[in-house]
Amino acid sequence: MKIALAQINPTVGDFAGNVQKILDYAARAAESGAALVVFPELSVCGYPPADFLEKKDFVARAGSAIEEIAAWTAESGRPAILCGTVMPTGLEVGKQVRNVAALLSGGGVQFVQQKMLLPFYDVFDEQRYFEPAVSQGLTIVDGQPLAITVCEDAWNDKGFWPRQMYAVDPVDELMRQWDAQSSEQAAKPRLILNISASPFWTGKPVVRQKMLAAIATRQNATVVMVNQVGGNDSLVFDGSSIAIAPNGTVLARAAGFAEDLVVFDTEAEASVASTEDDVAAMWKALVLGTRDYVRKCGFSKVLVGLSGGIDSALVAAIAVEALGAENVLGVGMPSEYSSLGSIDDARKLAKNLGVRFELLPIHDVFAQYKGVLEPLFAGTPFGLAEENLQSRIRGGLLMALSNKFGSLVLTTGNKSEMAVGYCTLYGDMVGALAVIGDVMKTKVYALSHYANRVREMIPRATIEKPPSAELRPEQRDTDSLPPYDVLDPILEAYVERYCSAEQIAAEQGVNVSLVRQVLQLVERSEYKRQQAAPVLKVTQKSFGMGRRFPIAVKVQL
Amino acid sequence: MKIALAQINPTVGDFAGNVQKILDYAARAAESGAALVVFPELSVCGYPPADFLEKKDFVARAGSAIEEIAAWTAESGRPAILCGTVMPTGLEVGKQVRNVAALLSGGGVQFVQQKMLLPFYDVFDEQRYFEPAVSQGLTIVDGQPLAITVCEDAWNDKGFWPRQMYAVDPVDELMRQWDAQSSEQAAKPRLILNISASPFWTGKPVVRQKMLAAIATRQNATVVMVNQVGGNDSLVFDGSSIAIAPNGTVLARAAGFAEDLVVFDTEAEASVASTEDDVAAMWKALVLGTRDYVRKCGFSKVLVGLSGGIDSALVAAIAVEALGAENVLGVGMPSEYSSLGSIDDARKLAKNLGVRFELLPIHDVFAQYKGVLEPLFAGTPFGLAEENLQSRIRGGLLMALSNKFGSLVLTTGNKSEMAVGYCTLYGDMVGALAVIGDVMKTKVYALSHYANRVREMIPRATIEKPPSAELRPEQRDTDSLPPYDVLDPILEAYVERYCSAEQIAAEQGVNVSLVRQVLQLVERSEYKRQQAAPVLKVTQKSFGMGRRFPIAVKVQL
Repeated sequence: MKIALAQINPTVGDFAGNVQKILDYAARAAESGAALVVFPELSVCGYPPADFLEKKDFVARAGSAIEEIAAWTAESGRPAILCGTVMPTGLEVGKQVRNVAALLSGGGVQFVQQKMLLPFYDVFDEQRYFEPAVSQGLTIVDGQPLAITVCEDAWNDKGFWPRQMYAVDPVDELMRQWDAQSSEQAAKPRLILNISASPFWTGKPVVRQKMLAAIATRQNATVVMVNQVGGNDSLVFDGSSIAIAPNGTVLARAAGFAEDLVVFDTEAEASVASTEDDVAAMWKALVLGTRDYVRKCGFSKVLVGLSGGIDSALVAAIAVEALGAENVLGVGMPSEYSSLGSIDDARKLAKNLGVRFELLPIHDVFAQYKGVLEPLFAGTPFGLAEENLQSRIRGGLLMALSNKFGSLVLTTGNKSEMAVGYCTLYGDMVGALAVIGDVMKTKVYALSHYANRVREMIPRATIEKPPSAELRPEQRDTDSLPPYDVLDPILEAYVERYCSAEQIAAEQGVNVSLVRQVLQLVERSEYKRQQAAPVLKVTQKSFGMGRRFPIAVKVQL
Repeated sequence: MKIALAQINPTVGDFAGNVQKILDYAARAAESGAALVVFPELSVCGYPPADFLEKKDFVARAGSAIEEIAAWTAESGRPAILCGTVMPTGLEVGKQVRNVAALLSGGGVQFVQQKMLLPFYDVFDEQRYFEPAVSQGLTIVDGQPLAITVCEDAWNDKGFWPRQMYAVDPVDELMRQWDAQSSEQAAKPRLILNISASPFWTGKPVVRQKMLAAIATRQNATVVMVNQVGGNDSLVFDGSSIAIAPNGTVLARAAGFAEDLVVFDTEAEASVASTEDDVAAMWKALVLGTRDYVRKCGFSKVLVGLSGGIDSALVAAIAVEALGAENVLGVGMPSEYSSLGSIDDARKLAKNLGVRFELLPIHDVFAQYKGVLEPLFAGTPFGLAEENLQSRIRGGLLMALSNKFGSLVLTTGNKSEMAVGYCTLYGDMVGALAVIGDVMKTKVYALSHYANRVREMIPRATIEKPPSAELRPEQRDTDSLPPYDVLDPILEAYVERYCSAEQIAAEQGVNVSLVRQVLQLVERSEYKRQQAAPVLKVTQKSFGMGRRFPIAVKVQL
């Protein structure tokens, strides 16, 4: 049986556009002789639709969209379509909608499998919206029985995970039904389909493949997983759709971080390329996330404040790959504390990347601000207020350019800074998207080397000089913070793994009082993160919707 | 039996402080001869603890805290304590913690009732954290059987709600157990206890009382509900703890919006004051929310930018009641487009409120900014960029004062503005807390009149003049928006009730194209709201955690 993996990039709420895309891919799959085309979870409405699911007209539009797609399958010889959508439950008690895989053929809805396991952790809120399935069933396409599951339904395998999140394993249950069927059907090759909207984090494509291979071998089945691709606010879906044979080998694999249509034969052997390494995947995720956020917000151009430092350089390099050099404007905004080298580095970066560069010095605005504040500030020493003011003047200039010319500002702060609050709210935190807000400083270096893999994009001087905010004379990040190779592992343990101060000190051989100082900084800057631009998620635990902490608290560290 | 309703204001994470408070209230209850003291849901750790619940050391601290409280009950003659806390589930599958009511007496934990219904809508994420109870039981204190429930467990009554959210009604189930008991116990007066952390919205105290009275009469039981009080980020808990007799009359009521200890006798008659009206309750919620946010963040002083308009005037008046006039600084920041009347109005407001007032004109900074931008802006007309720039200069000045003098900035935008995006990100949206971000403009007037109930605090001229942002000559809000008495009902229908454009047009007799224009503004400004300061919630649907919409979408209106 020929199955097409239709790995598409839908837009949330764009039913007309999503239906058109689904029909285009279905037509291409038909040309390849596929008997079944599989689309991602909720591909009709886009994922994650969030509270749009609570709007009746949104759910009604999904219903019309499914009818339109089903109508396409009426013509004889066309493949069946399996796609994800939202449907009303019609129940008197409980949630009003369900997340389903709808099998469309012969012009109608042939079968519907409701999602059984609804994730409610990290970035997932599915129990907020959906009523879970209470039962499952097998269906048949082209004489072939199919076990259909939706995303999380495949993520509770007892053989793979040391701890189960849910009491039920829907895959296992379906396979038991299979075995209970009449011998004729049961003799057919076992086929498990999974439609997904599984967001990326670094390393996840490998975990996903291992998990699916474990299911394939344990269940003696071919497993086909079709994942959404594309950026949606903070989340980047990597695609990486895959088909795995009962012996664990990969039968088919769609692209990472791009739309793709892959047709494979369940009966044929295949040899398939392997996945990319972590740094390359992280780079691609950031590029796709940036491109889609800008595009899906209806923009094409972006602004990046270039300080001459490595963070803004990396963001500019990502923006150029995502949007083209002609759509990126670099803005240097030196103050009296900026080194000459910094301006040169920023200009060189712009030249390397081929982007336009403008210089808007902030000395005079800064002086004028200080003049206005003088009656109140007189007699106080130069301090945080004056440092932040410079950063906020830069934010104001970038936003003025954004408003005047209709381009989005990209925020350049990294995860280490956001963690400890080494960033200025309404200053360098200004922007529509925090491109590297989930990338620790030590990883910023790795990505910068990756950016330079073909030729120098980010100037060597930028990579090699000691990090500095340049908001007062001779400032260095290490004046306020431990070196990043000490800081980042502490932050990773606290922010991503929720270790205690004692655990971190023991694990990393660092003084516990230093650890506590760092954790105190993390706790005290929660208010900044809650006003941050959306952060592109590339780790298992990023700042934003997946990490929910209150601000007005008193925490013992 | 004498029961004490101990309506306390805990701080999230402050185990030492919360335990001390619980023991203080328990001691006072003991003096009043209470046999049982009831504290709110999760009062040991504070509500909502959010992702702190995923930290093992947080849960461990809650365990030590309960031991400390239980130890207090060892001494003979002391009352039993019922309080809310978090405990590990110890399960191999599923969520690792449970939300419980713990009954402490004789120095130990006598009984634990796990919460059965876990809300997961609006601001609630409880299924993210907790494993629900699978069973319930009655317990006995002082020979009196008790049916113990936790918050949401009492919110699924079939007789009260037209639609059930959950299949089970825990109160009903417990009463069936009661009836199944031996005749001796069953003959005792029925007593249902509910420990809550039920956040305020306008009208909710009345709904809550009606719902509890419906349960009391239907179950022929005395219902005792003890609710948390205090502000925690966006949420304000109104307290309003209550005891209701089987005939529906109120036996005891604790204060609204303040800590309280009320002791009542289940056998005695009582006459109890009624609740306050909606505007008074909303005012008190905003005052408490502001006071607690500032205090629990470790601050005492605030800054308010005073434009001479009604929004900033109202916020200043709330701040003065919350924190005292000596802790509020009003800052006027006129530009060339500010009317003379505005500065006079701001000054008069400051005088009425007794707060210090400083004038920081922004003309010169604005001119300097325009000078820096001139090479890029030359030939373009004065527009949004220049308007927003003025607002951002003001934001920069307020933040400079905040950084220099260690005070929090209060944001002054109202809900109508936040809904349509008639506000400047990093400009007037700057601040630690959006005090009236859940108050529509038409309600701003009602609250301003309330602020003037004793004597004029908000100047009459401020209330009577047509609203204007004063960012260009002769600007009026009505240049860009429909009048607020037309706009607000459209926004209320769309933002709070999720009506479609057609429904709104029909319901309100407004042209559907005007409605669509407004809804378009709402959809296009989601990015601003996601970077807004926490908004004090005073309606059923406020901006923030309880309303989750993606940004990069394409929505048909």
